[in-house]
Amino acid sequence: MPSKIDTQIDSLGNATIKSTLGLNDDEGLQNTFVKDSDRVILDVDLNSITKKIKSGKTPLSFELAGPREELYFDSSKLKCGIVTCGGLCPGLNDVIRSIVFELHYRYDVKNIYGIKHGLEGFIPEYGHDLVELTPSKVENILNMGGSIIGSSRGEQEISEIIDSLERMNIRLLFMIGGDGTLTAASHLTEEIKKRGINIGIIGIPKTIDNDINLISKSFGFDTSVEIATDAIKGGHIEAKGYRNGIGIIKLMGRYSGFIAANAALGEQNVNFVLIPEVDFDFDGKNGLLGKLEKRLEKRSHAVIVVAEGAGQKYFDNKKRYDKSGNILLDDIGTRLQQEIKKYFKRKKIQISIKYIDPSYMIRSVPANTNDHIYCSFLGRDAVHAGMAGKTGMIIGYYNDKFVHIPLKAIAGKRKQVNPSGKLWHSVLESTGQGSLQNI
Amino acid sequence: MPSKIDTQIDSLGNATIKSTLGLNDDEGLQNTFVKDSDRVILDVDLNSITKKIKSGKTPLSFELAGPREELYFDSSKLKCGIVTCGGLCPGLNDVIRSIVFELHYRYDVKNIYGIKHGLEGFIPEYGHDLVELTPSKVENILNMGGSIIGSSRGEQEISEIIDSLERMNIRLLFMIGGDGTLTAASHLTEEIKKRGINIGIIGIPKTIDNDINLISKSFGFDTSVEIATDAIKGGHIEAKGYRNGIGIIKLMGRYSGFIAANAALGEQNVNFVLIPEVDFDFDGKNGLLGKLEKRLEKRSHAVIVVAEGAGQKYFDNKKRYDKSGNILLDDIGTRLQQEIKKYFKRKKIQISIKYIDPSYMIRSVPANTNDHIYCSFLGRDAVHAGMAGKTGMIIGYYNDKFVHIPLKAIAGKRKQVNPSGKLWHSVLESTGQGSLQNI
Amino acid sequence: MPSKIDTQIDSLGNATIKSTLGLNDDEGLQNTFVKDSDRVILDVDLNSITKKIKSGKTPLSFELAGPREELYFDSSKLKCGIVTCGGLCPGLNDVIRSIVFELHYRYDVKNIYGIKHGLEGFIPEYGHDLVELTPSKVENILNMGGSIIGSSRGEQEISEIIDSLERMNIRLLFMIGGDGTLTAASHLTEEIKKRGINIGIIGIPKTIDNDINLISKSFGFDTSVEIATDAIKGGHIEAKGYRNGIGIIKLMGRYSGFIAANAALGEQNVNFVLIPEVDFDFDGKNGLLGKLEKRLEKRSHAVIVVAEGAGQKYFDNKKRYDKSGNILLDDIGTRLQQEIKKYFKRKKIQISIKYIDPSYMIRSVPANTNDHIYCSFLGRDAVHAGMAGKTGMIIGYYNDKFVHIPLKAIAGKRKQVNPSGKLWHSVLESTGQGSLQNI
Amino acid sequence: MPSKIDTQIDSLGNATIKSTLGLNDDEGLQNTFVKDSDRVILDVDLNSITKKIKSGKTPLSFELAGPREELYFDSSKLKCGIVTCGGLCPGLNDVIRSIVFELHYRYDVKNIYGIKHGLEGFIPEYGHDLVELTPSKVENILNMGGSIIGSSRGEQEISEIIDSLERMNIRLLFMIGGDGTLTAASHLTEEIKKRGINIGIIGIPKTIDNDINLISKSFGFDTSVEIATDAIKGGHIEAKGYRNGIGIIKLMGRYSGFIAANAALGEQNVNFVLIPEVDFDFDGKNGLLGKLEKRLEKRSHAVIVVAEGAGQKYFDNKKRYDKSGNILLDDIGTRLQQEIKKYFKRKKIQISIKYIDPSYMIRSVPANTNDHIYCSFLGRDAVHAGMAGKTGMIIGYYNDKFVHIPLKAIAGKRKQVNPSGKLWHSVLESTGQGSLQNI
Repeated sequence: MPSKIDTQIDSLGNATIKSTLGLNDDEGLQNTFVKDSDRVILDVDLNSITKKIKSGKTPLSFELAGPREELYFDSSKLKCGIVTCGGLCPGLNDVIRSIVFELHYRYDVKNIYGIKHGLEGFIPEYGHDLVELTPSKVENILNMGGSIIGSSRGEQEISEIIDSLERMNIRLLFMIGGDGTLTAASHLTEEIKKRGINIGIIGIPKTIDNDINLISKSFGFDTSVEIATDAIKGGHIEAKGYRNGIGIIKLMGRYSGFIAANAALGEQNVNFVLIPEVDFDFDGKNGLLGKLEKRLEKRSHAVIVVAEGAGQKYFDNKKRYDKSGNILLDDIGTRLQQEIKKYFKRKKIQISIKYIDPSYMIRSVPANTNDHIYCSFLGRDAVHAGMAGKTGMIIGYYNDKFVHIPLKAIAGKRKQVNPSGKLWHSVLESTGQGSLQNI
Repeated sequence: MPSKIDTQIDSLGNATIKSTLGLNDDEGLQNTFVKDSDRVILDVDLNSITKKIKSGKTPLSFELAGPREELYFDSSKLKCGIVTCGGLCPGLNDVIRSIVFELHYRYDVKNIYGIKHGLEGFIPEYGHDLVELTPSKVENILNMGGSIIGSSRGEQEISEIIDSLERMNIRLLFMIGGDGTLTAASHLTEEIKKRGINIGIIGIPKTIDNDINLISKSFGFDTSVEIATDAIKGGHIEAKGYRNGIGIIKLMGRYSGFIAANAALGEQNVNFVLIPEVDFDFDGKNGLLGKLEKRLEKRSHAVIVVAEGAGQKYFDNKKRYDKSGNILLDDIGTRLQQEIKKYFKRKKIQISIKYIDPSYMIRSVPANTNDHIYCSFLGRDAVHAGMAGKTGMIIGYYNDKFVHIPLKAIAGKRKQVNPSGKLWHSVLESTGQGSLQNI
Repeated sequence: MPSKIDTQIDSLGNATIKSTLGLNDDEGLQNTFVKDSDRVILDVDLNSITKKIKSGKTPLSFELAGPREELYFDSSKLKCGIVTCGGLCPGLNDVIRSIVFELHYRYDVKNIYGIKHGLEGFIPEYGHDLVELTPSKVENILNMGGSIIGSSRGEQEISEIIDSLERMNIRLLFMIGGDGTLTAASHLTEEIKKRGINIGIIGIPKTIDNDINLISKSFGFDTSVEIATDAIKGGHIEAKGYRNGIGIIKLMGRYSGFIAANAALGEQNVNFVLIPEVDFDFDGKNGLLGKLEKRLEKRSHAVIVVAEGAGQKYFDNKKRYDKSGNILLDDIGTRLQQEIKKYFKRKKIQISIKYIDPSYMIRSVPANTNDHIYCSFLGRDAVHAGMAGKTGMIIGYYNDKFVHIPLKAIAGKRKQVNPSGKLWHSVLESTGQGSLQNI
Repeated sequence: MPSKIDTQIDSLGNATIKSTLGLNDDEGLQNTFVKDSDRVILDVDLNSITKKIKSGKTPLSFELAGPREELYFDSSKLKCGIVTCGGLCPGLNDVIRSIVFELHYRYDVKNIYGIKHGLEGFIPEYGHDLVELTPSKVENILNMGGSIIGSSRGEQEISEIIDSLERMNIRLLFMIGGDGTLTAASHLTEEIKKRGINIGIIGIPKTIDNDINLISKSFGFDTSVEIATDAIKGGHIEAKGYRNGIGIIKLMGRYSGFIAANAALGEQNVNFVLIPEVDFDFDGKNGLLGKLEKRLEKRSHAVIVVAEGAGQKYFDNKKRYDKSGNILLDDIGTRLQQEIKKYFKRKKIQISIKYIDPSYMIRSVPANTNDHIYCSFLGRDAVHAGMAGKTGMIIGYYNDKFVHIPLKAIAGKRKQVNPSGKLWHSVLESTGQGSLQNI
C-alpha cells in the first residue's frame, strides 16, 4: 500500500453556483449530494487500518465521486469537449454517451463536441472538424464497438492542444485514454495553471490491460476477458482435435497479465499461463518445454495462454518505442512457436501447433452489460466532477465505490498481478503449471 | 451499517493437521496462507472509520477467506457432500466444479458426493441416490446451465437431514442455496452442535436477486442482468414497432429490485422501472398511468421494467407461501397490464402492449465469464474454510475481498436497493421517470 | 404439386429504357442480365418431370429473378415507397436497407420513402409523416431488430391507400408483409389496373411461420429457429433441474409448425412436439398425458414444444379474428398446463412445470448472418423486378433460386408441415414421441 | 452443367432384409420409404430441361436419400465405424451424434466405434484405441466444437486401412472429410471390391470452403460465415477508429471464395473482396492499391476481405504440398500488408493497418442451429444409405433435397464462385469495388 501519494483534488476555483439537480421534488432525486469531505479509504485490512489510525496517521483515501451541491461552471455558457485516445477498448462509446446524456439532460449543457481522432484532433494541420455530440447522435451507439469520434496513437504538442482549446473555447475537457493520455492530461493541467486560464481536465482511465494503479477494474476489461475466453475455447478445441495438438493464444497485456490470468480462470482448460510479472524458463528441469512434453505425454494436447509482454528477457534490450511512447515489445508469440517447434523436432515428436491472436477481435467489440453499466457510472461521475470545477483528476473505482483520484497519484505507477497473491495462486491451481523457473 | 452483528466464525475443533498446500516448492504456491486474524472491514468511509477507531470501538469486519496452514480434516478419511437448493441460477455448476476440483486435486479428498435434488436428497422416501462427483464428471459442466445434481424447493426435517448425513458418513457439507437454505444451514449447525457430532456446514449464498445482506454481489447476478437486458431490448424493439407500443418486461426480484435496476442501466432504453423498495401509484398527478400517457404523447412508445415484487400494496395481504417458505406474490405483471388497458380504453387511446417474462430463460443459462471466474473463487474458498474445520458460515464478498461470514450475521436480513443511493439515483436519471408517488 | 397456378407476371407496360447496370466495363458487372424467358421449374423429381414433358405438358415454373436489360421506370423521375406490415420479424431492416441501397446506388433513384407504421401510414387521420430513406439513414440498421419505419396490424381501405399513393406520387411500392398484406397487395394491384394508373406493387413475403405457399424459406425464419432453440435449451435445463420437471415451450406457428419442428431438431432434447398439422389426443392409450407419465417414470423430466396453433380441436369453434384478419386462437399453452396439472394431481404425482413463451424475444431480434445475406438478395431482386415494370408479384425462393411469383399464385394457400414427409419423420425419430392419436 | 457424370450408386449386394422402420403403427412413421428410382434432377432451368427431355436425353439426376424398405445389413451382427479427417469444421460432432443415434435407436445397431484421429487411427503404429460410441457418450456433444474422436491431416496406406477394417471387423464405415478423404474413400471402395469383401463406405463431405462439386452447401459453412462476419465487424470498427485505417481480414478459401463472398454480404461494410476465382492487380489504373487510395481519400477508412487462396499469381509456382496433399499456398495476407505499406509509404500517406486472421476461431466453434439441423439430416441419411448396402457414395444436397452422389461424380472437381454469377455480382454491388484488373 503506497503511502506518499498525493490525494488532494485540484480545482479551478470556488464553486459558487447552486446545482439544480434534485431541486425538483417530483423527480425523487433530492438530497443525494456528495461532500468533498466524504472520502473512501483504500486499505480494508482491520489490523493495519486500526494501527495506523491509533498511531495518529491518516489512512490513504480519496474523495467520493458524485454530484456536488455547488458548481463551478454556468451551464448556459459552457462548451465541453470529449476526446478518446490510444487503442480501441470496449466501452468507449458508452462513456461518451453517458457524458453527453448527463451534461445535456441533467446539467443543461448544450454545447458538447467530440475531438476527432484523439489528440490529432487538436492539431490544425490534420484538418479534423469538431463533431457535435447531441443525445440523438449518441443514443444508439451502445451496441457499436470502437469510438464514434475515432482515436489515434501518439503524443501531440501540449501548448498546441491548449491553444486549440482556447480557440475552440472549450472550458471542460473529458479525456478518455491510457497511460500516455493521462500523462498528457497531467501536463495539460499544469500548463493550463501556468497560463492562468480556467479549463477543467477530467480523465477517464482506459486500459484494456487493467493496469492502472489504485483502480480495481478499468472499463472494457470485463468484456475483453469474456471475448478472450472464446479464443481460448477455440485453442483448446483445436489442440484436442489433433495428436499432440498445442493451442497457443496470445492475449493483450504489455506489462500486466490480468487479461491472461482472468481469461485462464474463465475458461479453465488452460495448462500454461505466461505473464510479464512472472518469469519463466524455456529449458531446464522446471522449464516450459519439458513440462509441455510431459503434458503431451499424459494428455496428448496442451493449451498455452501468453500475454504479449511475457518473456521479454528473451529479447535483446534495445528498446524501441511506438508513437504513444509504449515500448515496442518483441513478439513472444512467434518466439514461443519457434522454441516449441525446435524442441519437439529435436525430440522427433510430431506436434500440431495452432496459434490464435484475437487482439483486434477483442478490442473492437461493444461493451458487455457489466461494462455498459460501469461506463454509465464513470461518465456520470466525470460530469459531476467537471461541473464542480475539479480538474487534474480521473474517476477511479475501488472497494465498490467511485472516487476522484489526482492524475499525479496514478502517473508512472502500474498495477500488476501479484505473483504471491490470490489471483495468480488460483491460476497456478487451475493450470497446475507450477513454477516454470529453474532456481 | 449494522453494529450488533456476530462476526465470529464457529469451528469444529482444533485444526492441527498441517496443510500440504504450497509445500512443494516447484509448484510456486508457497507462503500464501491466510491467518484468521486477517480481517476485512466493511465500512470504508474515512470519517466514520476514524471516529469509531479513535473512540476505542472495533469496526465491523470479517475473516479473510483463503487457505489455512492448519487443517481440521484428514483428507484421506473425509467424505464430502454438495447440495444445491431452490431455483436455478447461473453458476451452480461452476461452484460444484470448483469445489470438486479443489477438494480432489489440492486437498486430495477423493470421496465427494452430490445430494440429488436439493434437501429432498436427504430424505429416504424420495429414493434419490447419491451422485459420485469426480473431476472427469464435472470437467465439462461449465457451459451447461442448471445444476447437474438437480434441485428442489421446500424445507425438509432438520433431524432427518442430520440422520442422513450420519448414515452417509458425510463430514463436510457444502450447501448452495438462498435464504431458506441458509436458514436450514443455520439450524443444521445448531442441531449438529447439540448432538455433539462434528460435521462442517459451509454455505455458498445463491440468490439471483442479489439480496443477501452484507454481500456486494452474489453469483449468477451478473449473468442474469446480461440476459435480462436482452429481454428489455426485445421489449423496446416491439414497443417502437407500433404506434403507442408499450413493452413490459417482468424481471425477478421478490423483495429487492437489483436485477431490474441494473438491467435498466445496462440497456438504457427503459422509461419506467418499478421495484419493491420504491412505492408507486397508478393514478393521480404523479401516478404511473398519467406519466405513461405523457410519454406516449411525446414519443409514441414506452418501455416498463417491473420487478416481480413491486406494487404489492395493490394486493390484499392474505399471505400465502410456497414450499420454500417464500411468500407467494400476487402477479404485478398481469395487474400492470390490466390497469394500463383499462386506463387507455377509458381515454379512448389505442395502445399495443407486448409483455415479456424471461424468467426461466434467465435462470437456466450457463454463467458468463465474469461469473465463471467469481464462482471458481467461491468454490475454492469454501473448500479452504471447510478443510480448516470452520462451520456455520458462508463465503461472502465485499470491498473486492472474499470473506467468512457467520450464518447468523446474514439470517433474517435482506439487502435492498437504497431509494436515495447512487444506483436508484442513476436509474431515475436514465429513465427520467421521477417520483411516481402522489405525496 | 399444384397444377392450375397462374405463373405469368403482370407488367405495367413496355419496358423500353435501357438499364445502365453493367454498362461500365471497369465495374466488372457486364453481361449479367436475366431474361423473362429464364424460368425455374418447381418439381425436381426426374420421373414426374420427364413424364409431364413427354406428354406435352409444361411443368410449373416461374420467372427467374434478377436485373433486366430493359426498364420501365425512368429513375430520375421515380419516387418509391416501402411499407412493413404485421408482426415484427427478424430481417425487416435488412430488406429495407437492401432496397434503399439498390435503388440509390445501382438505379440512381433518389426519392425513397418509408410509409410509417404499416398500412396506417396511408391513412391521413393517423397523421403519420413519410420517412425519407437515404443510404446514410439505413446504413447501420442491420444490427437492430424490428423495422425502422414501424408496423401495424390490420387492414385499411384499398381505395384510400391508392388515393394516398397518387397524392404522394409514389409509383413503385414495396410491400413487406404476410398473408393479409399480400392479399391487400393483390387487391391494390387490381384496383390500380381498374383506375388505369401505373403504380407497381412488389411484395416481399414476411412470415415468421415460414408458411407461404411455394416458397422454401421465408426471411427471418432461420433466425427465429435459432432463438427458439435457446428457449428450448432453457426449458430443458429447468426440466432436468427438478424431479418430474416438465418444460413447456410455446412457439409461433398458427397454422404451420415449421418453427416448432425445426427448433426441436436444432436442439435435440425435446420429447414431444405438438403442431397444428398433426392431431393429438390428451387421453387414451396413445394420448400425450399417458406418454408423458411414462417418460417421467423413465427419465424424471420431459420437454414439450407446442406451436401456438396446435390442438385447436380442444376449443369450441366460435371463431374470433384479430385486426389483421387472423383467427384468434385459443391458448393451447395454458390449456396444456391445465391438463397436465389435472392429470398428475389425479395420479398423485408431484410435478414441476416451467412454462416459457419466448415469442417477442424471437420476433424482435436482428437477423442472423444467414438471414442478412438472404434479405440482401430479396431486396435487390425486388428492385430489379420493380424497375422493370413488373407488378402484382412477390420475390420467392425455391430450388436455390430467386424467382418472381404472381400474388395470385400464393394467395389463399398455405405451406404446411407434411405429416408423412422427411421433416416430421425426423422429428418423430428425434423425439421418439410416436403417434399421439388413438385410432 | 456437366453431362458425363456417373450417377449410379454402387451396392454391396442384394438388400434382402426387411427394414423394421415404420412397422410399428403407433410410431406414426409408416409409409415413408424411399425408392431407388426416386431421383432428383440437378438442372432446374425450364428451357434446357425441356429441350433435353424432348430430344430423348435423360437429365442429370441422383438418387433421393432416405430410408429404404430393404436392408443389406443384419443389425444384430453389424459393427460400424466413424472417422473424421482433415481440418476441424463446425458440425463434426453433430454428424457423429446423428449417425450414432440413428444406428442405435432406429436400426438397433449396438456396435459403433470411433476411429481416433482420422486415418491415423487405422495404423497400428500410432497406437490409437477405438472409441466406443454410445448414445449417452454423444448425447451432449452438440455444443462442443471440434470432433470428439479427433482428426489428423494426411494420407495413410489404403491397404493398411482395409487390413485394419477387416481386423476390427467393421463392415460399414462412415468417413467425414474433405477432398483428400473422399479420394481415399474412393480408393478404399475400389480396393474393397478387388478384395471381394463386403465393406460399405459412406462419405459425408466436409469442407469449410463449401467447394464440393454438385453440392449447394456443405455442413459448417453457414456457421463459418457467421463467425467470419464477427471478424469483419472487428476489422471495420478498427479501420473506422483511425485516420486512414485499413482492416484486413483473411478468411478461409483455398480455391473457392465462398466464405469471403458470403461473409462480405453478411456484414456489408466491406470495400474489397479478393477471392481465388477472380484475378486482381495490385498496380495500374484498375489495381487494388490505387482504388484503396481513392477510398481512403473519400472515407478515410477501408475494409478488405481476402480469401487465403487469392492472388496466387503473385507467388512463384514451385508447388509445395501439406500432408493431406493440399498445395501449400503462399501467404497472401502477409503479401497484401507488405504491398499496401510500401505503396502508401511511397505516397507519404500515413495509414494504420489492422490484420485479423480468425481461422481457428472459426473452425473450432460448435455448429449454429442451421448446421445442427442440416447435420442431423446428413447423419440420418448416411445411415439409411449404409444400411441398405450402398457404398462408394456421399450424401449430397441440392434443390432442397438430400441425395446419393457417387464418389466418382465429385472427385477431382471443385465448386467455385462464378465470376459472372449472382453471388459475385452481389459482392460487386455491395462493395462497389468494380474490376480490379487492368485489361
